[in-house]
Amino acid sequence: MNGRPFGRDTARLVTFSDGVFAISITLLVLEIKPPGDNGDLLHGLLDLWPSYLAYALTFLFIGQVWANHHVMFDHIRGANRGVLLLNTLLLMVVAFLPFATSVLAGAFRDGDGERTAVVFYGIAFAVTALTFNGVWGYARRHRLVSESLGPAGAVAIARRFRLALAWLGLGALIGLALPVLGVIVIAAFNAFYWLPIAGESPSP
Amino acid sequence: MNGRPFGRDTARLVTFSDGVFAISITLLVLEIKPPGDNGDLLHGLLDLWPSYLAYALTFLFIGQVWANHHVMFDHIRGANRGVLLLNTLLLMVVAFLPFATSVLAGAFRDGDGERTAVVFYGIAFAVTALTFNGVWGYARRHRLVSESLGPAGAVAIARRFRLALAWLGLGALIGLALPVLGVIVIAAFNAFYWLPIAGESPSP
Amino acid sequence: MNGRPFGRDTARLVTFSDGVFAISITLLVLEIKPPGDNGDLLHGLLDLWPSYLAYALTFLFIGQVWANHHVMFDHIRGANRGVLLLNTLLLMVVAFLPFATSVLAGAFRDGDGERTAVVFYGIAFAVTALTFNGVWGYARRHRLVSESLGPAGAVAIARRFRLALAWLGLGALIGLALPVLGVIVIAAFNAFYWLPIAGESPSP
Amino acid sequence: MNGRPFGRDTARLVTFSDGVFAISITLLVLEIKPPGDNGDLLHGLLDLWPSYLAYALTFLFIGQVWANHHVMFDHIRGANRGVLLLNTLLLMVVAFLPFATSVLAGAFRDGDGERTAVVFYGIAFAVTALTFNGVWGYARRHRLVSESLGPAGAVAIARRFRLALAWLGLGALIGLALPVLGVIVIAAFNAFYWLPIAGESPSP
Repeated sequence: MNGRPFGRDTARLVTFSDGVFAISITLLVLEIKPPGDNGDLLHGLLDLWPSYLAYALTFLFIGQVWANHHVMFDHIRGANRGVLLLNTLLLMVVAFLPFATSVLAGAFRDGDGERTAVVFYGIAFAVTALTFNGVWGYARRHRLVSESLGPAGAVAIARRFRLALAWLGLGALIGLALPVLGVIVIAAFNAFYWLPIAGESPSP
Repeated sequence: MNGRPFGRDTARLVTFSDGVFAISITLLVLEIKPPGDNGDLLHGLLDLWPSYLAYALTFLFIGQVWANHHVMFDHIRGANRGVLLLNTLLLMVVAFLPFATSVLAGAFRDGDGERTAVVFYGIAFAVTALTFNGVWGYARRHRLVSESLGPAGAVAIARRFRLALAWLGLGALIGLALPVLGVIVIAAFNAFYWLPIAGESPSP
Repeated sequence: MNGRPFGRDTARLVTFSDGVFAISITLLVLEIKPPGDNGDLLHGLLDLWPSYLAYALTFLFIGQVWANHHVMFDHIRGANRGVLLLNTLLLMVVAFLPFATSVLAGAFRDGDGERTAVVFYGIAFAVTALTFNGVWGYARRHRLVSESLGPAGAVAIARRFRLALAWLGLGALIGLALPVLGVIVIAAFNAFYWLPIAGESPSP
Repeated sequence: MNGRPFGRDTARLVTFSDGVFAISITLLVLEIKPPGDNGDLLHGLLDLWPSYLAYALTFLFIGQVWANHHVMFDHIRGANRGVLLLNTLLLMVVAFLPFATSVLAGAFRDGDGERTAVVFYGIAFAVTALTFNGVWGYARRHRLVSESLGPAGAVAIARRFRLALAWLGLGALIGLALPVLGVIVIAAFNAFYWLPIAGESPSP
């Protein structure tokens, strides 16, 4: 019962995190409610377009979070109490995303409150990126990063996580002035991180 | 942090996908709401028959999706970024099925909007089949299919996935004209894919 | 893509089933809604006693289902298409239990419809037992039971599953006449199957 | 089908428990409902502060429960029927925490019923600690604790679990008189158990 119950083993932490990612991503659909009136169901279903878009946007983001979480913990040798706590904060933000998604979709469905909703949504995404930076920065400072990665690799990951934070923070900021453009900036983040980018991986 | 974080290993992808399948299949029950009035509970419970049928139909379909996903990834050697993205799209559609199920059940309970609901439901199923075709086609084009399968096996799987797409697309189309028949066609898909079919597997 | 995609391996089937059990058991709490009025919160919380009881009853039952499912599949060597289908039916009934639990709790909270609710609840439990009998009977008929168990062991498990079916069916039947007694009979099932029973396990 | 279906193996019990922890922690977000009125969304979102606080509080607590559950079962050699039952009771309380969280948040949002809500919430936390003590005490009495731990280690864990019970019980009791202070005491428990405490782990 000492200060590092998980010693050098991160397997359990990763499995538990994967569970939270899989559940969060699947709970997103619960925020989409069937139209109450079946009299004109087609219109009712079409009017839900903001829910579908928000669903897809957050789904692709959490999918990306899952993939990057694995990349990060492939290089973290051990989970001490600090890593455990920071990772729990990361999961706490990811598990909160279905709520932020629901707020975003609700505002665009009502045609009211879009500005606030986009900023709220963008902040939730940016805080997710912030917790990634927190885990990675902590692991580097406490020499928990595997030496096989090399300093250049560690810097490359840190740069990528910082770029994500800046990008998503910028999306929230733009949403303050131009809600729709803010959503587009956040959606572009998904595209950029999912699609293979020329030059990102020069050597196969 | 290169373009293929998962290298040749598909184990994590399969485990994560299994999680999403298990959660989606279990969330289906949340769409069935107890009758508000306990005064005549028996009638209230009987009136929910469309919910029970839709529940069973989607449950058996997602069970089939789970089994076929394993079959597919038993033969895919590695998961590059393209496989990751296409598989995430597949999961996105499967996780959406509880909503489509709720829409279907709601329309038949109300006796209104059945046509739209069946088409919507059939399209959701057909798009699921489409993403299977997408993953398999991509893996074949990028030589990610294990050579132990052989070209005949790869073609057999592709044919089976294309048949599923055609069948479910046809179900949606028929539902446009005859809603009940559309549901029957989709239900027959479940039966055909679950039950052992004579001639399908000639050698034990 | 032949008739037995899982060959002799039941590991995936068990992992997937465990996921459905864990999710079903955890979703039970969603059926308990906080009292709307916080003015007299204490009374509101106390009035929910049928929800707490139904929660505990179903939770212990699904826990038992989970343990017995492992016992059963420890002795089943392979999962062919028939086992896969019957096990999916088993999961379909288990994943339905949160709804039956909600119906039971709702009737006792309203003080109306208890008879119907207990019978519905008892039938859901009995059908769960029925699917266990189905899987085990099928595995025995198709010689999928591991020979290390021996005929006496196979018969002992079959007897235990048949007793469960009879017990729970009786509970539903009694509930038809005396709702409260029906619940007690079902609760006694939990106690009998969880507590160590003298004579049940003569040799350590 | 004897009295100890799991023999000496606790792996399945731990995996199943992890599933319940991951699902419970992720379901917490479902208790936060978007504000109905998007006209003044900013105010609506700010008014939900009790929900955010309660979410974070319970999330960190369940995260702690997860970590301590692993510590405990790292030292328990086998799971007999008694361990299985007591662990199921532990899971039953943990899976109930989203409801207690919802009650707490609702009372503070309404500004009514805080006293009752804090006591209810504190009791739920204390009962969680009680079930930990139950599992550990049972395992020690039945000589299921691994000898590699040593008597001093077993006593240290027991002391830590008893302290948790006393702390959380005290939090509930204080909440009876001073609701806000009760919440602070419970929150301090999280901080104390997550942060590295001087002297807790003298030797690295």
